[in-house]
Amino acid sequence: MEGVTIEVLNTGTELLLGNVVNTHLAYLGQALFPLGLRIGRQTTIPDGASIRTALLEAFPRCDILIVTGGLGPTTDDITREITAELLGLRLEENAEVVAMIQQRLARRNIPFRERMQRQAMVPEGATVLPNANGTAPGLYLRPLETPSSSTPHLFLLPGPPRELKPMFEDHALPLLREICGGLPDCECRTYHVVGLGESTVEEIIGLKLSERGDIEVGYCARPNEVDLRLIASRDVLEEVELLVFAAVGENLVSKRGEVIEEVVVRRLRELQKTLAVAESCTGGLLGHRLTNIAGASEIFPQGFITYANEAKVRAIGVPRELIDAHGAVSEPVARAMAHGAMETAGTDFGVGITGMAGPSGGTADKPVGMVFIALAQRGGVSRCQKENFATDRETFKQLATQTALDMLRRAIF
Amino acid sequence: MEGVTIEVLNTGTELLLGNVVNTHLAYLGQALFPLGLRIGRQTTIPDGASIRTALLEAFPRCDILIVTGGLGPTTDDITREITAELLGLRLEENAEVVAMIQQRLARRNIPFRERMQRQAMVPEGATVLPNANGTAPGLYLRPLETPSSSTPHLFLLPGPPRELKPMFEDHALPLLREICGGLPDCECRTYHVVGLGESTVEEIIGLKLSERGDIEVGYCARPNEVDLRLIASRDVLEEVELLVFAAVGENLVSKRGEVIEEVVVRRLRELQKTLAVAESCTGGLLGHRLTNIAGASEIFPQGFITYANEAKVRAIGVPRELIDAHGAVSEPVARAMAHGAMETAGTDFGVGITGMAGPSGGTADKPVGMVFIALAQRGGVSRCQKENFATDRETFKQLATQTALDMLRRAIF
Repeated sequence: MEGVTIEVLNTGTELLLGNVVNTHLAYLGQALFPLGLRIGRQTTIPDGASIRTALLEAFPRCDILIVTGGLGPTTDDITREITAELLGLRLEENAEVVAMIQQRLARRNIPFRERMQRQAMVPEGATVLPNANGTAPGLYLRPLETPSSSTPHLFLLPGPPRELKPMFEDHALPLLREICGGLPDCECRTYHVVGLGESTVEEIIGLKLSERGDIEVGYCARPNEVDLRLIASRDVLEEVELLVFAAVGENLVSKRGEVIEEVVVRRLRELQKTLAVAESCTGGLLGHRLTNIAGASEIFPQGFITYANEAKVRAIGVPRELIDAHGAVSEPVARAMAHGAMETAGTDFGVGITGMAGPSGGTADKPVGMVFIALAQRGGVSRCQKENFATDRETFKQLATQTALDMLRRAIF
Repeated sequence: MEGVTIEVLNTGTELLLGNVVNTHLAYLGQALFPLGLRIGRQTTIPDGASIRTALLEAFPRCDILIVTGGLGPTTDDITREITAELLGLRLEENAEVVAMIQQRLARRNIPFRERMQRQAMVPEGATVLPNANGTAPGLYLRPLETPSSSTPHLFLLPGPPRELKPMFEDHALPLLREICGGLPDCECRTYHVVGLGESTVEEIIGLKLSERGDIEVGYCARPNEVDLRLIASRDVLEEVELLVFAAVGENLVSKRGEVIEEVVVRRLRELQKTLAVAESCTGGLLGHRLTNIAGASEIFPQGFITYANEAKVRAIGVPRELIDAHGAVSEPVARAMAHGAMETAGTDFGVGITGMAGPSGGTADKPVGMVFIALAQRGGVSRCQKENFATDRETFKQLATQTALDMLRRAIF
């Protein structure tokens, strides 16, 4: 599908005001790539009248246009109406959609309201994309010749992610496969690297690959991680992959683009080993990241959020004297937490994290951002890493759990 | 600052491929609003040559343009070079920037690499915005007359959020304040509502406010929440706020736009009450959400991630017979978890969550998405809510924790 241009147009004043993070682009980018489609441009505009200009600008620029938002029942939702007007199509009430909306409301004991009726209006000739998780259906419109230009394949999708995603998978992707025909020749592989900087990754492998001319090389620096992204034909990728492995060595998180929590859960399942975690400053984020991976229950029976000192003592047997002597944020306490989690839960590995997330509470000795991360292993020696992540609270938690996952990864491979 | 148009241009192939979620727009939207600035449009383009077209299109359209990404050391980072070329400015090596980069690298024992030098090139006349968390400085360029048009105030900022945010706050915001002059007259207030649908919120209060003509009313449907957003002068907002409170009643999460975890943590601190949580299917997310709020340590001493049945029995004393009789995903077990967490940690409240996150493991009796959420209260009766959140794993966890937080909120207000 060389040369097909595809754009995404997100409507939503809340996105521009910053009340909501736009996750649609990332979702759509990942869903489209396997079809050989790459989003060439994405635009966000406010709710309301600016959709008109944005559509008129985008129509001549692309072959496929995906619009999100503005299909709901409230008065600032006008995507459907403006699209029909620009394409010169009449809006007709669709009896099936009315029935779907009424059934959905009845199941939930919600009364039908006058203004919900608007969601059942369909431009003539449009294909309805049913909404399994909301009242507003999506719409697909084939290319049309308008007075000024021809229009792209047009998909109108609802704004809420939990409505958009299943609809896209079940109803938009099949249509897109028909539109695009055969499978693409090129693949994208992302290699997550921990422990090397962006320039180093480019120097030891990236430049060499770029110079070949048949690989598109990209980089992305993330908290405690660099992503190396290669796009090329499958044959070329197979050929160079060993070079990547050799250059990056054990700093490579996975060979197949998995995120580090996937790698750790998969490997522990293979080894039939189990893990317990004791989290102080990360407050449950490590458990959350592990349990985002399906199958985590096999390897992660138990975690301890031991925010208070008393909890560290009672739940996982950290000696009170250790806390008194060294403070809760210290290497001995981190090691005792890792060991205590492992022993209490009866697992093969234990992780302990204790630090100062901030924003307040730091001292000259123990500044905000200081964190100790320990890993205990049944029958083996425990190890502990001291880090200083002076940043905001959420990034601190992200960095500390990322480091814990990487310590564990290196221990099990 | 009526009439100032501001745009954001994000560069990054990883954003369009979906490897990374764009959080810059939400951050910038929130940071700019208090200055009276509202982002009118945001565009994402790939790394590399498309920055040229995007800049040329945006220049005549806006007064202020914020560009992110493409300032790093690798070869796909060309924002600085293309901007200088389009503005007809020479790039000069800046000795201070070279020194900053070298100091940063020395502190971290990273060797200086040839290609890092590019980051010290500065277009003549540009203001350097120092980077406290990375090597690439940001740049500010005053409006210039070019052959074709005049250019906007131009801010070039680095792509990684942990570099962009402190730089924006410390160096870009002060410049923007100078550019924009006095304080704006209008305010934005967002009211988070739980327990009412979007149409209902519009019907009971939104339409009435829209009809006044002096308030901009917006809505955003989120998992188990509707945001009602009002933009108007402070006087008008003060005047109508009581109407909002009266219409929405106890379904209003907070009067001042706080998210639900902030409200719960603040209220428990006021009451000097403490909370423990026992999480099965949410795996630590509830603890994570609570501990994202500074000060959570005062009210949240301890949490239990009891993924395995054995952990439920040992850590918080859920009777084994209860699990055998009703299954782990059941109302009696949820209640016993809430109670056990409270008793074990010695807190005033306890939350217990047990359910089927999926994607597999469901049965006809207990389908994927079923979850029981219980709240125990010292000296009071416990309550339990049964929900069915048939969705993806992460949304399921989000919905279950949102429901738990809302049960707790209603109990403490």
